[in-house]
Amino acid sequence: ALQTHQFTVLLLLLQITFFVLFAKFGKYARSAMPDATPQDLEGARMTSLYPMFQDTHVMIFIGFGFLMTFLKRYGFSAVSINLLLASFTIQWAMLIRGFLSLEDGHFTISLEQLLTADFASAVILISMGAMLGKLSPMQYILMSLLETPVAIVTEHVVLHHFHVNDVGGSINVHMFGAYFGLACAKAFAKKPQRGHENEGSTYHTDIFAMIGSVFLWIFWPSFNAAVAATEEARQRAVANTFLSLVACTVMTFIVSQALDKHRRFDMVHIANSTLAGGVAVGTVANVVVEPYHALLIGAAAGTISVIGYKLITPFLSNKLGVHDTCGVHNLHGMPGVLSGLVSVLLLLTGNPKVELGTTYSVVYPAMDEQGQNISASAQAVNQLVGVGIVLLVSVVSGFITGFILRLKIWNQVRDTEYFADGDFFETPGDYDFTSRII
Amino acid sequence: ALQTHQFTVLLLLLQITFFVLFAKFGKYARSAMPDATPQDLEGARMTSLYPMFQDTHVMIFIGFGFLMTFLKRYGFSAVSINLLLASFTIQWAMLIRGFLSLEDGHFTISLEQLLTADFASAVILISMGAMLGKLSPMQYILMSLLETPVAIVTEHVVLHHFHVNDVGGSINVHMFGAYFGLACAKAFAKKPQRGHENEGSTYHTDIFAMIGSVFLWIFWPSFNAAVAATEEARQRAVANTFLSLVACTVMTFIVSQALDKHRRFDMVHIANSTLAGGVAVGTVANVVVEPYHALLIGAAAGTISVIGYKLITPFLSNKLGVHDTCGVHNLHGMPGVLSGLVSVLLLLTGNPKVELGTTYSVVYPAMDEQGQNISASAQAVNQLVGVGIVLLVSVVSGFITGFILRLKIWNQVRDTEYFADGDFFETPGDYDFTSRII
Amino acid sequence: ALQTHQFTVLLLLLQITFFVLFAKFGKYARSAMPDATPQDLEGARMTSLYPMFQDTHVMIFIGFGFLMTFLKRYGFSAVSINLLLASFTIQWAMLIRGFLSLEDGHFTISLEQLLTADFASAVILISMGAMLGKLSPMQYILMSLLETPVAIVTEHVVLHHFHVNDVGGSINVHMFGAYFGLACAKAFAKKPQRGHENEGSTYHTDIFAMIGSVFLWIFWPSFNAAVAATEEARQRAVANTFLSLVACTVMTFIVSQALDKHRRFDMVHIANSTLAGGVAVGTVANVVVEPYHALLIGAAAGTISVIGYKLITPFLSNKLGVHDTCGVHNLHGMPGVLSGLVSVLLLLTGNPKVELGTTYSVVYPAMDEQGQNISASAQAVNQLVGVGIVLLVSVVSGFITGFILRLKIWNQVRDTEYFADGDFFETPGDYDFTSRII
Repeated sequence: ALQTHQFTVLLLLLQITFFVLFAKFGKYARSAMPDATPQDLEGARMTSLYPMFQDTHVMIFIGFGFLMTFLKRYGFSAVSINLLLASFTIQWAMLIRGFLSLEDGHFTISLEQLLTADFASAVILISMGAMLGKLSPMQYILMSLLETPVAIVTEHVVLHHFHVNDVGGSINVHMFGAYFGLACAKAFAKKPQRGHENEGSTYHTDIFAMIGSVFLWIFWPSFNAAVAATEEARQRAVANTFLSLVACTVMTFIVSQALDKHRRFDMVHIANSTLAGGVAVGTVANVVVEPYHALLIGAAAGTISVIGYKLITPFLSNKLGVHDTCGVHNLHGMPGVLSGLVSVLLLLTGNPKVELGTTYSVVYPAMDEQGQNISASAQAVNQLVGVGIVLLVSVVSGFITGFILRLKIWNQVRDTEYFADGDFFETPGDYDFTSRII
Repeated sequence: ALQTHQFTVLLLLLQITFFVLFAKFGKYARSAMPDATPQDLEGARMTSLYPMFQDTHVMIFIGFGFLMTFLKRYGFSAVSINLLLASFTIQWAMLIRGFLSLEDGHFTISLEQLLTADFASAVILISMGAMLGKLSPMQYILMSLLETPVAIVTEHVVLHHFHVNDVGGSINVHMFGAYFGLACAKAFAKKPQRGHENEGSTYHTDIFAMIGSVFLWIFWPSFNAAVAATEEARQRAVANTFLSLVACTVMTFIVSQALDKHRRFDMVHIANSTLAGGVAVGTVANVVVEPYHALLIGAAAGTISVIGYKLITPFLSNKLGVHDTCGVHNLHGMPGVLSGLVSVLLLLTGNPKVELGTTYSVVYPAMDEQGQNISASAQAVNQLVGVGIVLLVSVVSGFITGFILRLKIWNQVRDTEYFADGDFFETPGDYDFTSRII
Repeated sequence: ALQTHQFTVLLLLLQITFFVLFAKFGKYARSAMPDATPQDLEGARMTSLYPMFQDTHVMIFIGFGFLMTFLKRYGFSAVSINLLLASFTIQWAMLIRGFLSLEDGHFTISLEQLLTADFASAVILISMGAMLGKLSPMQYILMSLLETPVAIVTEHVVLHHFHVNDVGGSINVHMFGAYFGLACAKAFAKKPQRGHENEGSTYHTDIFAMIGSVFLWIFWPSFNAAVAATEEARQRAVANTFLSLVACTVMTFIVSQALDKHRRFDMVHIANSTLAGGVAVGTVANVVVEPYHALLIGAAAGTISVIGYKLITPFLSNKLGVHDTCGVHNLHGMPGVLSGLVSVLLLLTGNPKVELGTTYSVVYPAMDEQGQNISASAQAVNQLVGVGIVLLVSVVSGFITGFILRLKIWNQVRDTEYFADGDFFETPGDYDFTSRII
């Protein structure tokens, strides 16, 4: 009986635990309370942050949710489990972050915490992309339960101990989510997952996926700019992301066609690789000061992303046994690494104190002459160490998680029902008919 | 001939009447006119309100419109009549509200009036959800013609005579729209409406519906916060709604699976009950000051909403003859009542003057010591009276409207064509083929 | 071989040229750079402009992209080529505009340039609507390559030499794009384009198109208000557009039904003509000061747009050989002309110095008493000259472009594959089956 009710029991217990922990430790920040001072309100910058928060919110729930509806028989799960998993992770992430910032036995919640909880859920949803179609709802929850604290503590170390600048989260969100998911997929690999007849799209599910893709594309500038510290940096981050994306999109189409023997575009590239420019410029969105640099970063990202889909994903699947349903390695993994490396390159070849003027110490606090006063090269090393830590921790924790998820004690998806809604959702009468067409 | 041209003639006459009334009585507020003073502009708070207005606008037209596309043969009507009905109601609501606030023979229009007109259209679109598939376009218009003034005058009485706090409109928008719709459905009930072969979804129409659902979910914080009087209250309303929704979503999945004998989720619950948390926290979105209260409200809402779909909707339909196409009772009705009761409970168990500090008199103007100076318990009674008035007026006026709508003088939907586009829209050649699949 | 690789080679060369030109001439404006002064930041008005920019961004990529998915076999192309073409045009438009505003050998980029690049891409996407289904990806790029500089230089002349007020771009964006597209379609006309079996929708592609349509409808107020110079004018432009759209929508439904012999609505009208109110009020969105004027403009636009679809589109196609796939003449062309004529009428019948108070010289700089000091009638003539210039230049340049596009040196779409994705996109197995249904 416990076997049958695993999802209900586990999730209910977790949700009740959340109630208790929020009751005991959570409270609203003063900027959201009746005794808010004008300074509190200004610090919360509700007016300028709220639209960027909502843009990010659209990316999480419409963007990720619909991008994953491309599978012909897994649309209900894609958009629904995305909603469930994000709702679960948002609470869990607020608690974890809260425990890392307790003051007088409480952590505080304001608009910023809602936004960073959305960011944290992005990590999990990226990993979900690699595991898409292979887990039961309960296993997705379990994955988030394990991954969220590791991701947030790692980010905390990277940002606060190594003072890494990662304004758009390309290292801490995209790389972490992608490599965790890939390692998890490796540990969870079973033969029937590969070449499964359910894996594929129909004409209309590819169009559903474009709803998610295009909204991600549109609002990515907000994602990369939202937590930049100063207004000019936010505007620059918006412009850099915008330019990176347009160049990335053009290159995606060029490479997609060039690598196809029938000179046709592939919707997988259009829906995913066009977004790689948003990832690749993320870490440096507040640092790049030349428009053409943003264009070049985007162009490079689109190119490697399509090449990834064409060459690296099959290699990972066939040779290394890493099955990556959505190709998160090409959208989040490699472009995330690229972003980290670009941040190193810009520090080694440029001079942040010149390029960023007085704001250099806001972007790179360890370089502040009143503080640690490290050199640009030392900051470059820090950035590289950040990339390395995230890569290492995500792969190890992802692999362990995949191993835990395949334990027999959990209900597993049946071999014939990978990438299919039927076992977990009530489906209308046409489900078999329309989604089996090929 | 008049019979055939009913829609054209009636709607054209109404639209011409609108032109005349707007010409005679309407003018722009000074904040939207060239002689605006800095004070006018600050009062209109364009910069902070406009994004919340646009979020609400998305909810009305994409949210409601696509949520109702789940019916397999009624997608054209759902999204199109939603657009028409809202466009009609927006004008009608502006006029009614205008006549309640005439000054020197004119009423004024600024951004706030656009927003409250959107709110008013939400009332009608909720009622439309209960009647979905049963009315002709003309009858929908007729319903709005009758319902809009009743809803707005009732709201006026509740807010201005009983000084009810209902910042997110759970009482005046959601409850009113739902119970009006249910009473209307009762009076309009005809046997062929129940168990109709057209009533049901297909795989892709359920996914279309999720576009509406997820956008409603994302932007609900703006709906509940937009008209809160102070900036900290708006931030709190956003956070309360956000937290209520995530807990509601988790509970929806738990209860949906737990109540199903095959342990499957039901897309009707996923698309609707996950939103009940937005309704249930609406009335008190500016009042709740503990994050875990918001979580608990949301969890309760998700739970009762799913139970409603499983048990109460069938009971209403089979025993009471109230056929509720979209289940608005579960998404808007009961959660709206819950929100009203929570507002009573918080007043009876707490102390608003402590919790809300100096802002208590903005939230509860009747409690202002310079004014009526009523007690918290008296305010609780007022809140309860507000719920009662809305329930009474909505049921009575809805029932009368349903009776009027079934009069033979109006063109009625044919029995075989309930929940179907074919009689009112030109349909492509595949309409019968793809939407008859079961 | 060059023939096969036309797209790759041409687009790659253009993108590399863009890199070089951006590197040599482009830089960020000071408001997006670390040395931004408070004055710079205020001038860029990031907080108030960014939400309107993002609304416009949604219109360009979701709005236009999904509105064009109505064709049953052309959905991949519609949303994908829309994304590609806009990404290309955004860069190209920034460069052209940049060269018109070089200072010290550089042009600057801030949020405003991102927004005006979006506007410029709207011009091209409107022309794409007329040519939809007839061009190969490379030909669409070629069209933008030719059209963008002509459109921007023409706009520059109209705005800066004739001081035309066109705040919502109805003349310079909508009219230009539409008449360029129509002339291009005329020059490109081939017999098999008319009455093609691929031209038509399916039930679900019409619903996909409504996603685009409704988002355009929702965010149009931002499009018309974004670049208005003063805050009260922006609020007025929002309200005028909002009112114009609701009246337009009601009239669209009335006329669509009235003109149909079976008294059915046509989804082509619902998806397109409801938007004509946004176009028709565009030029005068900051000038109209009476709410009912906005309602009347919208009502007129909806009426002529539906009549256009019913009577003028068939006439253009059958008698003049102008095949307009999306009917851009009815959504952008005639309503754009109407907007220009309304601007003339308002100047001839009103007194801007009274209606617009001290802001008249911001709206009509040529009327400034400290400057050219022209009369309202002279300004009316200027507005009319602006309409005339745009009409003339767009038709001539569109015709020449259409002629160039049909040259044999370019790969042409095969006669059987007009309005079909199959030659340019990898398509899933159900493509033929589901999209050939009629």
